Amino acid sequence: MRTSHIPRYQHLAEELAEGIRSGVLRPGERLPSVRQTCLQRGMSPSTVFQAYGQLESQGLVEARARSGFFVRAGRRAPRAVPKAAEPRTDATPVAVSELVYALLESTRDADVVPLGSAFPASHLFPFDALARSGARAMRRLPSARITGALTAGDEGLRQALRRRYALHGVPLADDEPIITNGAMEALNLGLQAVTKPGDLVVVESPTFYAALHALERLHLQAVEVATDPRDGVDLDALAALLARQPVAACWFMPSFQNPLGALMPPARKQALVELLTQHRVPLIEDDVYAELHAGARRPPPAKAFDREGWVLHCSSFSQCLAPGYRVGWAAAGRFAPAVERLKMMSSLATALPPQLALAAYLAQGGYDRHLRGLREALAAQQQRALRLVERHFPTGTRVTRPLGGYFLWLELPPSVDALALHHRARESGISTAPGVLFSADRRFTHHLRLNVGHPGDARFDGALRRLGELAQGV
Amino acid sequence: MRTSHIPRYQHLAEELAEGIRSGVLRPGERLPSVRQTCLQRGMSPSTVFQAYGQLESQGLVEARARSGFFVRAGRRAPRAVPKAAEPRTDATPVAVSELVYALLESTRDADVVPLGSAFPASHLFPFDALARSGARAMRRLPSARITGALTAGDEGLRQALRRRYALHGVPLADDEPIITNGAMEALNLGLQAVTKPGDLVVVESPTFYAALHALERLHLQAVEVATDPRDGVDLDALAALLARQPVAACWFMPSFQNPLGALMPPARKQALVELLTQHRVPLIEDDVYAELHAGARRPPPAKAFDREGWVLHCSSFSQCLAPGYRVGWAAAGRFAPAVERLKMMSSLATALPPQLALAAYLAQGGYDRHLRGLREALAAQQQRALRLVERHFPTGTRVTRPLGGYFLWLELPPSVDALALHHRARESGISTAPGVLFSADRRFTHHLRLNVGHPGDARFDGALRRLGELAQGV
Repeated sequence: MRTSHIPRYQHLAEELAEGIRSGVLRPGERLPSVRQTCLQRGMSPSTVFQAYGQLESQGLVEARARSGFFVRAGRRAPRAVPKAAEPRTDATPVAVSELVYALLESTRDADVVPLGSAFPASHLFPFDALARSGARAMRRLPSARITGALTAGDEGLRQALRRRYALHGVPLADDEPIITNGAMEALNLGLQAVTKPGDLVVVESPTFYAALHALERLHLQAVEVATDPRDGVDLDALAALLARQPVAACWFMPSFQNPLGALMPPARKQALVELLTQHRVPLIEDDVYAELHAGARRPPPAKAFDREGWVLHCSSFSQCLAPGYRVGWAAAGRFAPAVERLKMMSSLATALPPQLALAAYLAQGGYDRHLRGLREALAAQQQRALRLVERHFPTGTRVTRPLGGYFLWLELPPSVDALALHHRARESGISTAPGVLFSADRRFTHHLRLNVGHPGDARFDGALRRLGELAQGV
Repeated sequence: MRTSHIPRYQHLAEELAEGIRSGVLRPGERLPSVRQTCLQRGMSPSTVFQAYGQLESQGLVEARARSGFFVRAGRRAPRAVPKAAEPRTDATPVAVSELVYALLESTRDADVVPLGSAFPASHLFPFDALARSGARAMRRLPSARITGALTAGDEGLRQALRRRYALHGVPLADDEPIITNGAMEALNLGLQAVTKPGDLVVVESPTFYAALHALERLHLQAVEVATDPRDGVDLDALAALLARQPVAACWFMPSFQNPLGALMPPARKQALVELLTQHRVPLIEDDVYAELHAGARRPPPAKAFDREGWVLHCSSFSQCLAPGYRVGWAAAGRFAPAVERLKMMSSLATALPPQLALAAYLAQGGYDRHLRGLREALAAQQQRALRLVERHFPTGTRVTRPLGGYFLWLELPPSVDALALHHRARESGISTAPGVLFSADRRFTHHLRLNVGHPGDARFDGALRRLGELAQGV
């Protein structure tokens, strides 16, 4: 995937989406006609149609027969998006695991509505088809293939992944990917491959708590960099940070960042990789949500712009196809041999039955159809959840409108103590992920991550309403 | 399992086996009659019969109709057992992974005879039955159980393991075991739970290379303690070591140690646990070979003697039931919560499909039957391999005769460079595990670990003969 391969329709769609969000294009307003836009921009009609189609699938516009495309009526004036944080730029030793641990435990009670969970509803995944594929694959398998399995993973699955990346314009090397016990292990191995205890690692602000865990476990120091809820990492702030102190690595999620949902535009990803390459600083790229794009195309990973192998790209099937199977991977560029060696040293190899089930499932060709259905369900549920948040949460609440993934990030009025809200909600049978989980120095005290990956769950609407009411009272 | 539960027949069998090995009882000699032994020792006939039966299953004696039991005729004078090493007692930083990595790669070529491999032949494992169990379990599974899976592992499998340990007299706590990605992950998490970078860890001499890997990865220092090829860790040497310097942990394999095959007698395991408890030093116990005993009973783990929770007991199905499934566990005593937390931080949870396949397989009740067949096959192959070693290896070669597991440890004449032999063998399509792999400071230069877990493999006999010839010439 090169910059020139970023489709033109996507640029157009993003520009129009921004116009709608900022209020330049108002609810009920008609978009410029396809013909008009073709003339103005020198684009083909199919390009413009594709852009409008993407906006429609995101629920931002609607097509009316013989009249064209309109910004969705009935939408209220869009809520404000949370402000970008201004993190401390000094290093912080990390210790959030106790808090996260207690909170994760609370999401595992089946009677609790999992607004704090990190996974979508299980009915969204093709577990029956996976079990059937797995059964066939395991029964047909020569047992020598089982005991001879490589640390790097089952070769059939690795080839399937290489093909998939190649289709997206990202060629992988022969020693990529290395199959891991979920993306979590891939990220941990990648981080360990490029750091030693005491090193400084740059993370986003807010940060996915697993990154903080990994830093804590490996005795590393975190430095947070300002991260825009829409566009991701602030490259000027990052450049200043790199100029000021030695940094061992960055750990970022450039596509649909957890918890913000921020999506770095392709040009910005490219600039990020160039900046880091120049400083010879490895980028641990967590790309687990990229397949869950609301737009027409999978956003390119930072690895697509990596010429010199400084990106350790990590992803997984846990969010988009097979939670519980714990199959992830690292395509670690110049660090691939080091990651493979660490994998051998820490867990030898990844379990073969889930790898074979996934390889067989991918070979059957149902994956893209599954993804389309999953994306539609998540996008629809995001719309529904946004309406509930607008209706029931305190005045002054800001909320993100991510273009993919299944999280909303809420900035509540500063008077709201989100941790207290979390405990109150827990008493009402609702789990939440309060903002303090997402920072090494416990900022984001009045913030909340909401999982909107549970479409069709009636309890969900009630829980969201109840949570809003509780927030009014905290 | 308390000391008083160690069956009396086993004490008798071990005593007689020792007599045979040391030459006190010579080939062709008749054992004392059952009646005579009953009278002399105040034992019941069934106890004595059990002891003789165990010796028979180990191939040490044979029953002749109406004449009694005889030390096996046709046996040559037993070969000498390798001498216990006298390791350096100062700390050594660890860096063996490069060597091990290259060697492991070589065992993965299907055309290579895997004398250096760490796993038995795959035809010994019930992969078809496991696949069928797994398929049924996965198809019947409510998908919520998949996404809700705990870091600690599938509760069905945990309960099955608790029952199995209880049957062996080792009750586990409610927070034990924690299911891991093989024993390798369990051991790594256990080690990390009780150490910080720079700490000193006591290992056996020779040491299983995975322990050296784990130390290397976690920036720890190794101290080796003298280890008898038959009885395991020298407790006097260990006591002296503990008195001299602060030690963060011990990492031992008290039953069928890899590579020696040493088995610590129950009383010695108990003394080990008491010594470590007194010093408040955690014991990482690697117990993966215990089910592969040649005698009638599973030897008790060190954990059986642990009153205060200082033993982090780790085991796995990879050696005895399901290689490639990567399902192991840690029963970590007082450190169980810390291990669970580290598991969450480093790989979140263990893959569910293999856990469910194993839980379903265990519920069907075929496991013990499988184990009996596996033990018999391994014991028979050990006898066969010992005869080939006696016939084809250089004069002066010493070899272990372990009471379980599937490794032989050879001490070749000091003039033989085992690493050079390894390379020569590799050219002949044979992999070996040279002694230098098993020491932080590259001792055991004329030693070799042989995998005898490939019964019925005709290539195996030829490779062993060829290896002996090569050793004559190196």
